Amino acid sequence: MRILIMGGDGYLGWPTAMHFSSKGHDVAILDSLVKRYWEAEFGAEPLIPVSSIQTRVRGWERATGRKIQLYIGDISTNHRFLYDVIERFQPEAVVHYAEQPSAPYSMFGREYCVETQRNNVVGTLNLMFALQRSAPDAHVVKLGTMGEYGTPNIDIEEGWLDITHNGRQDRVLFPKKPGSFYHLSKVHDSNNLEFACRIWGLRVTDLNQGVVYGIETPQTTMDKDFVTSFHYDAVFGTVLNRFIVQAVNGIPLTVYGKGGQTRGFLNILDTLQCVELAVENPADRGEFRVFNQFTEQFSINDLAAIVQRVGKGLGQDVVVDHIANPRVELEEHYYNAKHSKFSDMGLQPHLLTDDVVARMWETVRQNQARVHHSLVQPDIKWKQG
Amino acid sequence: MRILIMGGDGYLGWPTAMHFSSKGHDVAILDSLVKRYWEAEFGAEPLIPVSSIQTRVRGWERATGRKIQLYIGDISTNHRFLYDVIERFQPEAVVHYAEQPSAPYSMFGREYCVETQRNNVVGTLNLMFALQRSAPDAHVVKLGTMGEYGTPNIDIEEGWLDITHNGRQDRVLFPKKPGSFYHLSKVHDSNNLEFACRIWGLRVTDLNQGVVYGIETPQTTMDKDFVTSFHYDAVFGTVLNRFIVQAVNGIPLTVYGKGGQTRGFLNILDTLQCVELAVENPADRGEFRVFNQFTEQFSINDLAAIVQRVGKGLGQDVVVDHIANPRVELEEHYYNAKHSKFSDMGLQPHLLTDDVVARMWETVRQNQARVHHSLVQPDIKWKQG
Repeated sequence: MRILIMGGDGYLGWPTAMHFSSKGHDVAILDSLVKRYWEAEFGAEPLIPVSSIQTRVRGWERATGRKIQLYIGDISTNHRFLYDVIERFQPEAVVHYAEQPSAPYSMFGREYCVETQRNNVVGTLNLMFALQRSAPDAHVVKLGTMGEYGTPNIDIEEGWLDITHNGRQDRVLFPKKPGSFYHLSKVHDSNNLEFACRIWGLRVTDLNQGVVYGIETPQTTMDKDFVTSFHYDAVFGTVLNRFIVQAVNGIPLTVYGKGGQTRGFLNILDTLQCVELAVENPADRGEFRVFNQFTEQFSINDLAAIVQRVGKGLGQDVVVDHIANPRVELEEHYYNAKHSKFSDMGLQPHLLTDDVVARMWETVRQNQARVHHSLVQPDIKWKQG
Repeated sequence: MRILIMGGDGYLGWPTAMHFSSKGHDVAILDSLVKRYWEAEFGAEPLIPVSSIQTRVRGWERATGRKIQLYIGDISTNHRFLYDVIERFQPEAVVHYAEQPSAPYSMFGREYCVETQRNNVVGTLNLMFALQRSAPDAHVVKLGTMGEYGTPNIDIEEGWLDITHNGRQDRVLFPKKPGSFYHLSKVHDSNNLEFACRIWGLRVTDLNQGVVYGIETPQTTMDKDFVTSFHYDAVFGTVLNRFIVQAVNGIPLTVYGKGGQTRGFLNILDTLQCVELAVENPADRGEFRVFNQFTEQFSINDLAAIVQRVGKGLGQDVVVDHIANPRVELEEHYYNAKHSKFSDMGLQPHLLTDDVVARMWETVRQNQARVHHSLVQPDIKWKQG
């Protein structure tokens, strides 16, 4: 299958590209590389040095004999570039990771908020128009986030909700209450995409993904050039990655507030599995399909306790610090999010065992010298504007 | 009260500015004048010539002795200008009409879609940041549209919905299913504003306004320079205005498809009344309040029949034509939208009587020579992309 990975230079995009290429698909990567610039703005360095995308792709061809095509350009500011790529490559599936992915980044001030929403919303609009123009049958697998839902007091369904109101019934998009300008950009995308399915008959799978953890996939470990960008900093890092880096370095874990915040989580290996299941079982023409993509729910306190326990087993004392919450969010709440659709399709989850954490711990330990302690303290506060 | 009218050069903005000024408020208008450019792109001329905003404001001062301050600039591309206006004028209320207001415009192609969403979403984001920075206590009265809801098979509540799901309860934003990229931009705005109320404690009233009809307010008729822009064309005109222009000119009324499409409608006089009620009874700090702003529901066929009946009384045969629907929408559907909040606050509706239509008919007849027949045929098709 011809699969276009948009954002194929990123934490998940690059492993996804290698994954599909190793399965024999015809893979192309599209990326603007602007994420590397955003990281530079905050001095956020990945834990393990990341090669250039050109080096990665060349190395991949050398190691496997498989070619990954590379298109460098910005889909949000240069729609002609995107039109050309879609026209020439004629993708059967588009996996769309090409967005600004950080909630704190989007909350750093007006420019960052506007840049996040402009980049994400306009890039996705341009993709919709490019497909409608040259590849209307292509299946879009769009990365959204569980954070779009917020923490409602009712069960979270997978995208759509069957509703009865005053004795009448309808099926509606699940009401969302996102927690940052970044999360809002994903909600805007979902609404725009649902409309494109309705009026143009595009086919879209919207993945509301949980928080991803993990560094390694079968491909990233093949060569130092295939490593993916593992962030532990307070801007681009996700919580479990950050906790393990803190623990290994003897820094107290920074739990925001009470720590009862509960979210869905998944291993990077399951991101690959889910995206593959979605690609192999496309949405119908005109269908806007939503899957909740995570395998387990944890509270932040749960995760801190797991890291503490694994540390103890490895002879390291881990201190847990409850710091003032930089975000505006409920710290104790109901949370029950459905995630049966991928299970029904055959997902075999990689759960968060102590062994998994210990293996991450070991990888982090080997790269301990590169950790910048100052990067893990949150400086971006939701209330400040 | 210090009231800032954003988009104060528009169809509703200018009458709103005069209305508040005549009541003794301290009014300022902010406008980029870009709407005049958008009209020029399509050759859409208002039925009655509209004076420049400078002439309007000078004339208003001459006629009433009341000064309306004027700020010309673009809130979506020049946030420093907006920051300055908010800082200097220190509004107590901001009435925000400053958006691209046409669904067909937003559906004319990629540039128009992107320009609509960028202009509307970024302009509103910039306003949120400007208020948070310099006037966090100001009350925002934001113009949205009933079209954000679409045509669900359940009753439409006013913005929020009390929901019971699997035995648990929550209050959620009413699920929306907008029918154009323009309507989507308003949904994005609502989601962004609700978040700003939650994290910064802004106070916002979101008005989901029905389709407005009418030409005259007590102020627009005072002087030829005070006339407001009445559009009858297929891009910027609303349906009843267009039908009356067609009827007066002996052109068949263009009903899109079956004509069972039902919407909420209101007289321009009730727009003024509703906005005033909202301004005089502000939302609380942190409150995101939603009112459905319309007085009556009609189907498109209902409106055509009314115009036909009024025409008959005036001795003119009116032909109703059902043309291929350029939009993608349900043409027969359930529609029951609540609109009791403004009634509870004291709204005295101006209903759509035959006399009201006859009065509009007469005004249109006096300006009949200026009608361009080609402008009323819809050229913009939802399916074409």
